Amino acid sequence: MGKVDILISEVGPRDGLQSITNIMPTAAKKQWISALAAAGIREIEVGSFVPASVLPQLADTAEIVAHGLTIEGLQIAVLVPNLRGAENAIASGAHKISIPLSVSETHSLRNVKRTHAQMLEEIARIAELVNSQPAHKRPHFEVGLSTAFGCSLEGPVSESLVVQLAEASLKAGCHEVGLSDTTGSANPAQLRRLIDKVWSAVGRDKLTGVHLHNTRGQGLANALAAIDMGITTVDASMGGIGGCPAAPGASGNIVTEDLVFMVEAMGLKTGVNFNALCAARELFAAAMPNTELYGFTPMSGLPKGMEIN
Amino acid sequence: MGKVDILISEVGPRDGLQSITNIMPTAAKKQWISALAAAGIREIEVGSFVPASVLPQLADTAEIVAHGLTIEGLQIAVLVPNLRGAENAIASGAHKISIPLSVSETHSLRNVKRTHAQMLEEIARIAELVNSQPAHKRPHFEVGLSTAFGCSLEGPVSESLVVQLAEASLKAGCHEVGLSDTTGSANPAQLRRLIDKVWSAVGRDKLTGVHLHNTRGQGLANALAAIDMGITTVDASMGGIGGCPAAPGASGNIVTEDLVFMVEAMGLKTGVNFNALCAARELFAAAMPNTELYGFTPMSGLPKGMEIN
Repeated sequence: MGKVDILISEVGPRDGLQSITNIMPTAAKKQWISALAAAGIREIEVGSFVPASVLPQLADTAEIVAHGLTIEGLQIAVLVPNLRGAENAIASGAHKISIPLSVSETHSLRNVKRTHAQMLEEIARIAELVNSQPAHKRPHFEVGLSTAFGCSLEGPVSESLVVQLAEASLKAGCHEVGLSDTTGSANPAQLRRLIDKVWSAVGRDKLTGVHLHNTRGQGLANALAAIDMGITTVDASMGGIGGCPAAPGASGNIVTEDLVFMVEAMGLKTGVNFNALCAARELFAAAMPNTELYGFTPMSGLPKGMEIN
Repeated sequence: MGKVDILISEVGPRDGLQSITNIMPTAAKKQWISALAAAGIREIEVGSFVPASVLPQLADTAEIVAHGLTIEGLQIAVLVPNLRGAENAIASGAHKISIPLSVSETHSLRNVKRTHAQMLEEIARIAELVNSQPAHKRPHFEVGLSTAFGCSLEGPVSESLVVQLAEASLKAGCHEVGLSDTTGSANPAQLRRLIDKVWSAVGRDKLTGVHLHNTRGQGLANALAAIDMGITTVDASMGGIGGCPAAPGASGNIVTEDLVFMVEAMGLKTGVNFNALCAARELFAAAMPNTELYGFTPMSGLPKGMEIN
């Protein structure tokens, strides 16, 4: 596999599915993940190690990780809410584990029932566990700074708090932080400013990825701003699945298919074959016929004369 | 009215409506245009001076222009396909007239049945007519370089041909050129490159606006690229109306509502009040209930704590 300029981290199987009530059968998830990998996707967040009672959709995460690990060259990422989840993630053999640390403490209390201080203690415990693993079994450990661009409960969040929490997370022993626009509130100017501030505080190598939502249609513009800055990993979900069922058109993550078109059209390599990506979309659509899919390029096709492979 | 940083030129009443078969009643168009102006939109392309037999939807353009001219501070733009249209446009009192010059000659022949040479002769005749008007009746005359980023018939178009046609149009006497992504093929890198090339050839003051479509979901990312370069006029249509009925989700122009959110969130002034803009959207939706509206921000609302007015 050749080098890529932009790593598209597909989060549909986790962030996309988690807000969808209809449970996707485990066999269909495996086929979908295989199809995504066959299309050239190099990293997939395949699930969350949370109690099955909380998220029945992701109850098969360990089995999905095991399947993903059979696919050569595919980086398998999972989300964990706490130390217990991290233990399970390490046991599963996932290559990368992420924990959300919400910059809005109100959101943190609502989401994981922990204050910032409590979350930082948990992050330190996870880091200790991660870093005590032998090198070949040690996952990459990232803290995702969620609601970093605004919170639907608190409103605007302080940019210096984002920077402080990035510093504190790294001090607690994580390997990297990410910036997450959980509520789809970000704008390109804010992204550039915040990336710059975090880089100044912790170094460019400690923040290489962003996680964006398309709630206000700003997803690709924000991705462009981040890529222009030098961000090299961009999360996206196939068909922009996820989002809030109460807000029609308010999609979830940014759409993988349209992101791949943008990045490749700009002359940057993603490693993705566009037709094979559309085949993976078809496969998902067949397995989950009641899930609305977003994205324009799969319907319009590529511009005449263009190929992405 | 205060100064704006970015002029949003609303093209819904022309580019949006022209591909919609259901005819919007003249009275409803007038109400809609008044509501757009009341929301702070400073320029509206209200119609096209083409034969009513070709575009029945826009047969009332002269009456709509007359209505628009009663709204203080509103710039009224119209499209014309030829000299005859320009004569009607000047008679109507429109402030700005645009003619499309397709960079793809195949598209030009299909669209207006004229070669590049024939179109440049027509542009020279229109320029002569425009420039012979007394100053207070002289409209701004723009040539819109359509299919400048790719053609669905020819495929890629030559960037040097875009530059040549920009130079030739200005030599023929138009006041300004615009770059139009008629087919929604553009990417941000291409926009930056082409704006730079045209500016180098004709000067920054001869290209201040872009006309983008959202066919591949790239609309706002492309608008961001153009605004970053220093483009100050961006066309958009309310609800992203228009587009191709044969391609579900393949919307028309970029969505005014989401564009206003992006630009204002970045700290640039549009002069638009967001709530009033949404009221204009409601008014349109009520008048044209069978027309699908795009855009995310009207459904999600602004981020908590944000106002645009």
